[in-house]
Amino acid sequence: MNRPAANRVKRIEGVLSPVITPFGKDYAPDAKRFVAHCRWLLRSGCAGLAVFGTNSEANSMSVAEKRTLLEALVAGGVEPSALMPGTGHCALSDSIELTRAAVQMGCAGVLMLPPFYYKGVTDEGLYRNFAEIIERVGDERLQLYLYHIPPVSQVAITLNLIEKLLSKYPGIVAGVKDSSGDWANTKAMLDAFAKGGFDVFAGSETFLLDNMRNGGKGCITATGNINPGPIANVYKNWRTADADKLQAGITATRKIVQKQPMIPALKSAVAHFGNDPQWKTVRPPLVELNAKQEEELIKELKAAGFTMPGLA
Amino acid sequence: MNRPAANRVKRIEGVLSPVITPFGKDYAPDAKRFVAHCRWLLRSGCAGLAVFGTNSEANSMSVAEKRTLLEALVAGGVEPSALMPGTGHCALSDSIELTRAAVQMGCAGVLMLPPFYYKGVTDEGLYRNFAEIIERVGDERLQLYLYHIPPVSQVAITLNLIEKLLSKYPGIVAGVKDSSGDWANTKAMLDAFAKGGFDVFAGSETFLLDNMRNGGKGCITATGNINPGPIANVYKNWRTADADKLQAGITATRKIVQKQPMIPALKSAVAHFGNDPQWKTVRPPLVELNAKQEEELIKELKAAGFTMPGLA
Repeated sequence: MNRPAANRVKRIEGVLSPVITPFGKDYAPDAKRFVAHCRWLLRSGCAGLAVFGTNSEANSMSVAEKRTLLEALVAGGVEPSALMPGTGHCALSDSIELTRAAVQMGCAGVLMLPPFYYKGVTDEGLYRNFAEIIERVGDERLQLYLYHIPPVSQVAITLNLIEKLLSKYPGIVAGVKDSSGDWANTKAMLDAFAKGGFDVFAGSETFLLDNMRNGGKGCITATGNINPGPIANVYKNWRTADADKLQAGITATRKIVQKQPMIPALKSAVAHFGNDPQWKTVRPPLVELNAKQEEELIKELKAAGFTMPGLA
Repeated sequence: MNRPAANRVKRIEGVLSPVITPFGKDYAPDAKRFVAHCRWLLRSGCAGLAVFGTNSEANSMSVAEKRTLLEALVAGGVEPSALMPGTGHCALSDSIELTRAAVQMGCAGVLMLPPFYYKGVTDEGLYRNFAEIIERVGDERLQLYLYHIPPVSQVAITLNLIEKLLSKYPGIVAGVKDSSGDWANTKAMLDAFAKGGFDVFAGSETFLLDNMRNGGKGCITATGNINPGPIANVYKNWRTADADKLQAGITATRKIVQKQPMIPALKSAVAHFGNDPQWKTVRPPLVELNAKQEEELIKELKAAGFTMPGLA
């Protein structure tokens, strides 16, 4: 389990989108719109797709629903080597089931939340959770990215936990997405582990340039769902003289979007610029933007010259 | 859906235990020990079993694992009329699946967490979640108890939400378990809704007597797993002159147990007094008590004259 595996898929670097999930009027996941959006994202600059993330409303879906969508993606022509599905659940058995499915389908990696129902749990308990999943999946192709998002999960991935996991499962434990929103924390992860082959992804494009300049590998960002081209452009040009200016541009777009509740805002943008109102549906407990929020969002995006080329 | 249903099971009143779940060395749920513990609880004074609660590590188990345990209980001779399983998940589809199964098995009710991954959600979003579950289960036998436990779920069941649900689904929305730990909140729920046939259960026996004196229907309490007889005795005698003294006794036992992490402490107590060390196993991300914690727990329980009659 611990040795480098020749048959592992090449690690993804660059910009990944935590793909929003379209639902029908009956709240059923809509595989057709999902595949179409994923294909547009890959055409538009995304290096990979972190499907089933927070922005995907993944935790509002069952394991079976996620497996079905994953199969639809591959059947729809998306290469598993571009996929890093979220597979962490609060139930150990659910995490094992979806992780195993993802590895068997050849996904490049999985992005794993800690179990998030119980609060105040110890690093030892979290270590046991991840270790048990790795052992039970029992497949040396597994590349596991830890998902640190304390504002939502309320359960953190500490440096101490990463160290312990890396020491037992080098190669398998491949990196982290840091959605703490705290650059000092991302920097600490980079300083401690990046040189050892641990891939740090910023959880927002706001930190993309800083992350690249400090040894990171890219970002996995909500706004990647609607602004993949310009964000990928920062990644591509981070060593150039234009980098700071390019970064300022994508940060400005981010600021417009995050004035509104993020997930319904992304869906409203896709609905508007893709001419497809059904995209606005969110699963409870989320609610769509109200008319005023939507109007403000679209107006400000248009005023900033925002477009989604090739979407509609 | 909204009219009183003659075929609804009689509502449970009294003391319910959120039953701890035994696991094997491989973390698999152990149906045999589970049925035995449930039968002991019902013999020992529990009016009902709130299986799959927070103390059951329910959110560390998949829907399939919970269905299997529920079927084992009924096959093992536990009447569904004594069952109020927890069926609320963060995924809408999971909540629908397990709620439907519980109703079809004839369970007296279900105890439902709000979806707990996304934070800062609105009452409107939570209303849609519960309404969608009720409509999709589509069975007038359903009796739904809302589960308010903000210290863990971080998502609250507000008075406003209860009012909105009660007005649309009277009879189906049957009550609440208040695990806020805040008596003022329980009192507000009692004052607002108890007279209209909304059954309020305290989330700890600490508030049992106060709850009964203010129109409540009992309690659903962690410590009910190990101290069901004395707690049920307070319920039975709450109108008597002895009530305050009896309440002081169960509160004292509670205080000993809650010095330790609650779930592993309950399991250690059952392991010790039932002579069955396998009971100590918890699923990650929880960890069992360390030797010192366990020694302190058992020593203090013994010093207080605590016993678990008929367990071993």
